[in-house]
Amino acid sequence: MQLTRHTDYSLRVLMYLASHDNELVSISRLSDAYKVSNNHMVKVVHNLVKIGYLKSVRGRNGGVQLTHSPEKILIGNAIQDIENQPKIINCSSINCILEKQCILENTLISAQKTFYQQLNKTSLADISSNKNELRSLLKKA
Amino acid sequence: MQLTRHTDYSLRVLMYLASHDNELVSISRLSDAYKVSNNHMVKVVHNLVKIGYLKSVRGRNGGVQLTHSPEKILIGNAIQDIENQPKIINCSSINCILEKQCILENTLISAQKTFYQQLNKTSLADISSNKNELRSLLKKA
Repeated sequence: MQLTRHTDYSLRVLMYLASHDNELVSISRLSDAYKVSNNHMVKVVHNLVKIGYLKSVRGRNGGVQLTHSPEKILIGNAIQDIENQPKIINCSSINCILEKQCILENTLISAQKTFYQQLNKTSLADISSNKNELRSLLKKA
Repeated sequence: MQLTRHTDYSLRVLMYLASHDNELVSISRLSDAYKVSNNHMVKVVHNLVKIGYLKSVRGRNGGVQLTHSPEKILIGNAIQDIENQPKIINCSSINCILEKQCILENTLISAQKTFYQQLNKTSLADISSNKNELRSLLKKA
């Protein structure tokens, strides 16, 4: 069980923006900081705009910023939104013969719920509370 | 967050064997039942033997069987063993600039622990308790 690279970068974009208050940040600054290609970062940011976590401001001094305050963004919800509510196991996509009688699926779904509930005890503000340290690391990148 | 295909098939092999009591089951029977290539199933079974969940008996009537009773196999432990204790997020492999100051990693690790703890409330025997129904579906495959 591992977060996808896409989710991982999405969370780090949120942390970047949370540690830079309400500043507008360009995609190239984000991709430079995390040493990821501009193309990849465009996809990550595009999805975060689409799901309503970021807003994009055009123009020479444009960039993206958070649409909600970091206190309101809970990590469990954010991961679910970023991944578009994926099933932990996709029984129908592989035509599993056991599907109609399977107890495993519900066991996994219920454990996945506790995972997100646990993550929802933490907000983006919590994981960006060391704002100065994060900014200083991001400046060095 | 999704289980890998490898983990998914591994769990289903365990369910197959648990629902067939102490029977020796050949790899071709497993791959036929789950409609997966023999090569893929060899890898899945090989790993389950390697981590001590299955033993393999050679010969014309050979096959694999569980090394422990299904009551003793807890789903959370099984997934961790199958996946070889993977980190939910691998900060060092991507040289994340935030690594030294990151609060997110511990948040994720702690949620992952609750996920496995929740899964450990369920054993292989529990998810194979409908043995007859499972056997009947697997026979049809």
